[in-house]
Amino acid sequence: MVRGKIRSLSVRDVRFPTSREQHGSDAMHTDPDYSAAYVIIETDTADGLKGYGLTFTLGKGTEVVVCAIDALSTHVVGRDLKEIVSNFRGFYRQLTSDGQLRWIGPEKGVIHLATSAVLNAVWDLWAKQEGKPLWKLLVDMDPKQLVSCIDFRYITDALTEDEAYEILKNGKQGQKKREEQMLKQGYPAYTTSCAWLGYTDEHLSELCTKALKEGWTRFKVKVGADLSDDIRRCKLIREIIGPNNLMMLDANQRWDVQEAIEWVTKLAAFQPLWIEEPTSPDDILGHATISRALASLGIGVATGEQCHNKVMFKQFLQAKALQYLQIDSCRLGSVNENLSVMLMAKKFEIPVCPHAGGVGLCELVQHLILFDYICVSGSLENRMCEYVDHLHEHFKYPVVIKNAAYAVPQEPGYSTEMKEESVRQYQFPSGQVWKELNSEQQGKLG
Amino acid sequence: MVRGKIRSLSVRDVRFPTSREQHGSDAMHTDPDYSAAYVIIETDTADGLKGYGLTFTLGKGTEVVVCAIDALSTHVVGRDLKEIVSNFRGFYRQLTSDGQLRWIGPEKGVIHLATSAVLNAVWDLWAKQEGKPLWKLLVDMDPKQLVSCIDFRYITDALTEDEAYEILKNGKQGQKKREEQMLKQGYPAYTTSCAWLGYTDEHLSELCTKALKEGWTRFKVKVGADLSDDIRRCKLIREIIGPNNLMMLDANQRWDVQEAIEWVTKLAAFQPLWIEEPTSPDDILGHATISRALASLGIGVATGEQCHNKVMFKQFLQAKALQYLQIDSCRLGSVNENLSVMLMAKKFEIPVCPHAGGVGLCELVQHLILFDYICVSGSLENRMCEYVDHLHEHFKYPVVIKNAAYAVPQEPGYSTEMKEESVRQYQFPSGQVWKELNSEQQGKLG
Repeated sequence: MVRGKIRSLSVRDVRFPTSREQHGSDAMHTDPDYSAAYVIIETDTADGLKGYGLTFTLGKGTEVVVCAIDALSTHVVGRDLKEIVSNFRGFYRQLTSDGQLRWIGPEKGVIHLATSAVLNAVWDLWAKQEGKPLWKLLVDMDPKQLVSCIDFRYITDALTEDEAYEILKNGKQGQKKREEQMLKQGYPAYTTSCAWLGYTDEHLSELCTKALKEGWTRFKVKVGADLSDDIRRCKLIREIIGPNNLMMLDANQRWDVQEAIEWVTKLAAFQPLWIEEPTSPDDILGHATISRALASLGIGVATGEQCHNKVMFKQFLQAKALQYLQIDSCRLGSVNENLSVMLMAKKFEIPVCPHAGGVGLCELVQHLILFDYICVSGSLENRMCEYVDHLHEHFKYPVVIKNAAYAVPQEPGYSTEMKEESVRQYQFPSGQVWKELNSEQQGKLG
Repeated sequence: MVRGKIRSLSVRDVRFPTSREQHGSDAMHTDPDYSAAYVIIETDTADGLKGYGLTFTLGKGTEVVVCAIDALSTHVVGRDLKEIVSNFRGFYRQLTSDGQLRWIGPEKGVIHLATSAVLNAVWDLWAKQEGKPLWKLLVDMDPKQLVSCIDFRYITDALTEDEAYEILKNGKQGQKKREEQMLKQGYPAYTTSCAWLGYTDEHLSELCTKALKEGWTRFKVKVGADLSDDIRRCKLIREIIGPNNLMMLDANQRWDVQEAIEWVTKLAAFQPLWIEEPTSPDDILGHATISRALASLGIGVATGEQCHNKVMFKQFLQAKALQYLQIDSCRLGSVNENLSVMLMAKKFEIPVCPHAGGVGLCELVQHLILFDYICVSGSLENRMCEYVDHLHEHFKYPVVIKNAAYAVPQEPGYSTEMKEESVRQYQFPSGQVWKELNSEQQGKLG
């Protein structure tokens, strides 16, 4: 059972030099060093359990998020864990509504990424104390308690507490069967590993061919930098994967509204299921315009990885501005805020297809989408979870993919814990890896 | 003429202990310590001119913004100032679209506040080198050059570069006359100093009565914590100021959408001109709903001080979600982004009524609203600039209010420079003021 007082919160800046091989490259993020602000909380209990939490970053700026986590830690250290989870809504509100800190948000950007990392650690610890993987902690929870974790401020015009409760109560029907199904077959995934923007056609062909052999049937392609490149790459991939497999496009916010419509129309021949992040992540009305324009081509709009909070998601749903909703485990305020978004998606009948990849995003979000299927949506139609084959080796309990599906995690916790050796090696700038890169660079310059 | 290479960028964390007297208290920010992340840039020229820039914060979290400014400084130090201002759009894009840093925004929250502080310093330096106050630098600028300072990414569906140019070209008509008018009578202001939420009725009555004697005719009242308090306070103020003066309400994001409509309806008897920030600053569609509901009561919706970028303002305009647009000199990306918002407001025929107060916001934004009147809107109808009587004594060129209007600033620059002595005294945590407060507190605890 949940126990102990939080004695300390520490945070590390962990960066992987992924930019060297163009992993993760897209039309807007050309040289990401996949990174994380990594939180560890410890209690005064003798069980030795620690909570690990993280938020994903792209290298530079991780130190800013670390600084924000330090600022939030005053709300966490000294608190009783039981007290936190028995009024989780109140604790969430406290973190997000600090009278001084909220000015630098509110609930967006750096401070919200920090909130996410801190709360992810709390959820990890809670699940570990209960001896359950996070998805199972959620699945076993009473609808009343689930609802009590959600701060409904600013979303009651779309979803009231009573409506949320009703959805969760109804979700109990058939829950057992869906849980067994998941344990047997896992949650369906798609791969983004084959077609990063920085890859050559040859590399791309190789990876697609290999992925097909491994059983993948859904493929995401990065687009948006150059139209003729996009046409060539989409054609190539459609030829390799054939007419029946799924192809999704991702522009990573490269276009203005009209430009998005024109560009994607020229790629319609390759029958993409969706266009992801066609324009600014803040442009709800722009996404609605694009959705309307592409509907007749059978192409949906997907977005969410940079949608900064539930108020934005609420409007995306109200405005019919997306047809696939991509939650993110580390940009929204952890499980609490993701619960509210999954419930709104259910009410608006929009499928949730989580964003993953980065550092640890697959590890975390698999828990959320399992809960979504078992207790909220009850459907796999038009649903799948992103998978990227990067950096899993640094996690203590890495995701397991079988037959292009996420195998259900069994270990207690939120799968957030990284290997201590990895954290030590990749800590920025003092870790061995960065020391070596630094002296290498000095050598080149000198 | 513009000259020199930027040799250094330094930043200080300056905090004023305003929470001790409930100055600045509202329904969501109950204990703000008005603060600033304060940037100083120096060049390699012999003229000794420095650029000062700031962004406003509420105490805690200022160190996070300082950290973000440090992260941005690599894009600034070593750059030629002429090169920057001759492609200001490009420089703006570079700061806001760094492939790694944009993940922790993009263009919102901490990293955008940091961008604002840095660019405010660049504009201050540029104006000083030209020997003009910033408003005059802008007024004298060719429309082509003004437009070249704006990054139109993500707003072309609302305002194209050609349209912006046309507006500015048309704005040249009568410009001379409006400039002379401003020099003579100043820009109309309203006061927020009389009715902070933490003030007693007695204090509030005293301040209103005094302000009336000083010539103020427009008063803002903080509301949203308790309805019966609000009714009592609004009644009191309306009695003091009489039926012909203006009263505006400000809820600082306290309500959900439906709650806002119901609450404000109950205050309609006191004939407020607008309700400011009725709900989440991110809730464009919510503001639109509130706008529609209150229109028949003759109450408009005002918002903007926490509207995080031009993409959000674009949608507020497209959705008819505000009737008074409140730009902020330190939350938007400095002059560059504010230009784009003022031009969009002109196109959508919505009056700009800037947010001010805090630390230095009055000093900065007076330049923008002067430019707006002289070169963009050409109208004073339904327009006024917020004024709060706080902390001006710490600025080298503080605002001057005459007859409830901003007197036009004459000194070269953006009025951003603080007194060196103030910065030294209030630097956090090492300044004398904070050392004393700290030992005082230690004494109380001990």
